Amino acid sequence: MIGQFAAIVGDKNVLTEAGDRLPYAEGGRGLGPLPSLVVRPRGEKQMLAVVALARELGLQIILQGARTGLVEAGLAQADCPAIILSTERHNATIAIDADNRTAKVDAGVRLSSLNDAVASSGLYFPIDLGADPSIGGMIAANTGGARFLRYGDVRRNTVSIDCILPDVGQIVRLGKGLWKDNSALDLKQCIIGSSGALSIVTSATLALQPLPTSRSGAIIQLADASWLAAILRHMEGRFGSLLTAFEGMSANAVELALKHVPALRRPFSQMGLGSYYLLVELSGPDAISHELLDALLTEAVAEIFSRFPKFCLDAVVGHIDDFWAIRHAIPAALRASGTVVACDISMPRGSISEFRLQAEALARKNWPMLMLADFGHIGDGGLHFNFVWTDAERPMPAAMKYDVQAAIFEKCVTEFDGSFSAEHGIGPANIEFYRKFVPPDVRALSAAVQSAFASVPLGRVNFG
Amino acid sequence: MIGQFAAIVGDKNVLTEAGDRLPYAEGGRGLGPLPSLVVRPRGEKQMLAVVALARELGLQIILQGARTGLVEAGLAQADCPAIILSTERHNATIAIDADNRTAKVDAGVRLSSLNDAVASSGLYFPIDLGADPSIGGMIAANTGGARFLRYGDVRRNTVSIDCILPDVGQIVRLGKGLWKDNSALDLKQCIIGSSGALSIVTSATLALQPLPTSRSGAIIQLADASWLAAILRHMEGRFGSLLTAFEGMSANAVELALKHVPALRRPFSQMGLGSYYLLVELSGPDAISHELLDALLTEAVAEIFSRFPKFCLDAVVGHIDDFWAIRHAIPAALRASGTVVACDISMPRGSISEFRLQAEALARKNWPMLMLADFGHIGDGGLHFNFVWTDAERPMPAAMKYDVQAAIFEKCVTEFDGSFSAEHGIGPANIEFYRKFVPPDVRALSAAVQSAFASVPLGRVNFG
Repeated sequence: MIGQFAAIVGDKNVLTEAGDRLPYAEGGRGLGPLPSLVVRPRGEKQMLAVVALARELGLQIILQGARTGLVEAGLAQADCPAIILSTERHNATIAIDADNRTAKVDAGVRLSSLNDAVASSGLYFPIDLGADPSIGGMIAANTGGARFLRYGDVRRNTVSIDCILPDVGQIVRLGKGLWKDNSALDLKQCIIGSSGALSIVTSATLALQPLPTSRSGAIIQLADASWLAAILRHMEGRFGSLLTAFEGMSANAVELALKHVPALRRPFSQMGLGSYYLLVELSGPDAISHELLDALLTEAVAEIFSRFPKFCLDAVVGHIDDFWAIRHAIPAALRASGTVVACDISMPRGSISEFRLQAEALARKNWPMLMLADFGHIGDGGLHFNFVWTDAERPMPAAMKYDVQAAIFEKCVTEFDGSFSAEHGIGPANIEFYRKFVPPDVRALSAAVQSAFASVPLGRVNFG
Repeated sequence: MIGQFAAIVGDKNVLTEAGDRLPYAEGGRGLGPLPSLVVRPRGEKQMLAVVALARELGLQIILQGARTGLVEAGLAQADCPAIILSTERHNATIAIDADNRTAKVDAGVRLSSLNDAVASSGLYFPIDLGADPSIGGMIAANTGGARFLRYGDVRRNTVSIDCILPDVGQIVRLGKGLWKDNSALDLKQCIIGSSGALSIVTSATLALQPLPTSRSGAIIQLADASWLAAILRHMEGRFGSLLTAFEGMSANAVELALKHVPALRRPFSQMGLGSYYLLVELSGPDAISHELLDALLTEAVAEIFSRFPKFCLDAVVGHIDDFWAIRHAIPAALRASGTVVACDISMPRGSISEFRLQAEALARKNWPMLMLADFGHIGDGGLHFNFVWTDAERPMPAAMKYDVQAAIFEKCVTEFDGSFSAEHGIGPANIEFYRKFVPPDVRALSAAVQSAFASVPLGRVNFG
């Protein structure tokens, strides 16, 4: 078997030694099971041959990209004879069509490589993330990020997918890379966000956006998080599509970031006046200067202060990169501060303030030893409602993670009509909640669609 | 049978008289077969009961909204015992969540009613059309329109769908109306653009956009259509998301519009200097005044003129409503001028100029009696590459429509990697081209997905 794979991809790209396989066991949230075999094809021909051989041998295929995923969808499973098909070498092509504002890229290309390649055309792929995933992984998870408010997710910015359906045994092209096309069912939409369980994506044509050339930002200290929707609506009314981020950060999360990364610049001489911060970003095209954006944002912040005088405590306009540095330092700061219980949730935007109050009270009552250090994308209703177990003396009790997630998800999904997986997708890490919260009729339909795509098992998620 | 339907929806809403049924035979491009029975439920309960009864009686269901569709997907078929399920009375609900920028609306609500209802919240559903379709019809066709460049299509602006799958026999909710959600396969995407052949949509939650408050526009006379992509890229670089339309119009199309609607204001004292016009629109939020937009657009137009001096002949900035009036008058003007052969195509944006040259030459050689009067959405690669048979003395030969479409589609799809249906969807009017141009592997997968949704036949399109 090993020889058969090696005949396709070369000896070096069939990893059999435990030491060689170990890096492929690590996901974005730590170690999973050690894969029994890792195969690293390059190019469509090798991809097709590897898939055909795995099918012939009756091996399940688990696709793996840059291993930045947060739900374990790309990791091996202990109980199943699967191969890891790593796309990390399948990254030769970035074909830019600047006139069409699109680029066709191989699944193994990293987000940063794509953006480096298209920058000289004045373009970028506008999914803003802390991590640097592969394009295939981004499609599998339908990645969102911090500028979703303006640009949407991977789904919105993907105009075609080339993929292998093992039953078909060849590359199927779903979509032609056009902006506007209604000549068939848009089946690539099923694949986006399917955790690698419907097909093996070999390449995709992505829609690019003009690179903004001016930016301005504000960070605002708030007494608490009680008027987020009102401020958001004010800013959207004022700035429309110039508003490119509207992020919330609890004071706890900001404090952990500042403590963990001492080089971060404190925006206020007096921090922690209140319990919540907002980061507001404007981005403009060539014709709109950053001075104009600064002036307009200063004016809008003043309006907010006069409308909510007791609620708005302090604000700084400018230094946008400093503000983002704090925001992006939060996830690592939480991990460095203890054991994290992460809840990647979303809900209607107007419900966030009330949800935070109720969920915080619930957690304080049941798990007083956990610190709530949440942050999120208020502009799209997404919250990383994360807790940290900071006690270095004792490990967090084994059942606590599940209990906290179950309680937070329950409140979010059933009381606030929200989602238990806003932007990280579905994988072994949360499939139990998928079964719990997604209604049986939707799961039955999903299973029928999944089997329309592939009769052989793919990936680690059964959507039934 | 009639009595059974009447027991559900009332006598008045089961149309059996030929005269009553006749209006339901008329689509956006004229009369189709007379339906044998029209049933008009109101509310989910009646919708469910009508679907269940039709299933019990073995009747095919064809969904019909506002009858503005252009591919006959909502019209009866002569050869099949189907009922027309008209959603025109199913329009009671428009539930606005202004904080979330969404509205849940019944399928029979018209686009204009939705926009009237949300205007007081400073919001709108940003699909810009000449027609006034129902929301259900817009979902079936995945309507695009003239501001696709900025806002995308119905797909991009739909966050949940409630629908009936006849096999399930109850309302299935696909999506929860959230902006960011990856908690399941996004199955509503299969339904959007499915011509009513996968499920019966009862309602949808739509994403709304802040209503722009400032606008500016330019109309530019060009010698010909040879530098469209370069001008588009210049404008996109300058204006980014402030650019809300970039429309092209052949001089023939503009002349027919001005002739057909004498009240239209001629933007230039001397029209027809060249063979092509561009309409460029900027829209800004509250913080950006229309004076600023006018000034910036004037500057950008001057840059274009200095870069392409022989190509740019004349331009006017301002009077944006006058420009749109001309643009929107074109489709009716073509119909009033003779028999229209319509080709709703799209392609990579950079190919439009060359395609026009080649396709015009092809048509001139083979069908010299046809006038090319094309217009389109250059910003999204969409072209209404339409011809008019203007000879009032003789009818157009019966085979000509098919022959012209087949030749134009062939060139567009196979030589220019384009689409034969950019924004009108698939229906009996173009299903032959679907079979011809959509590859067998994609059709086989589509058929499998279609039967995952509904084992009983729905609509008029078999995606196999």
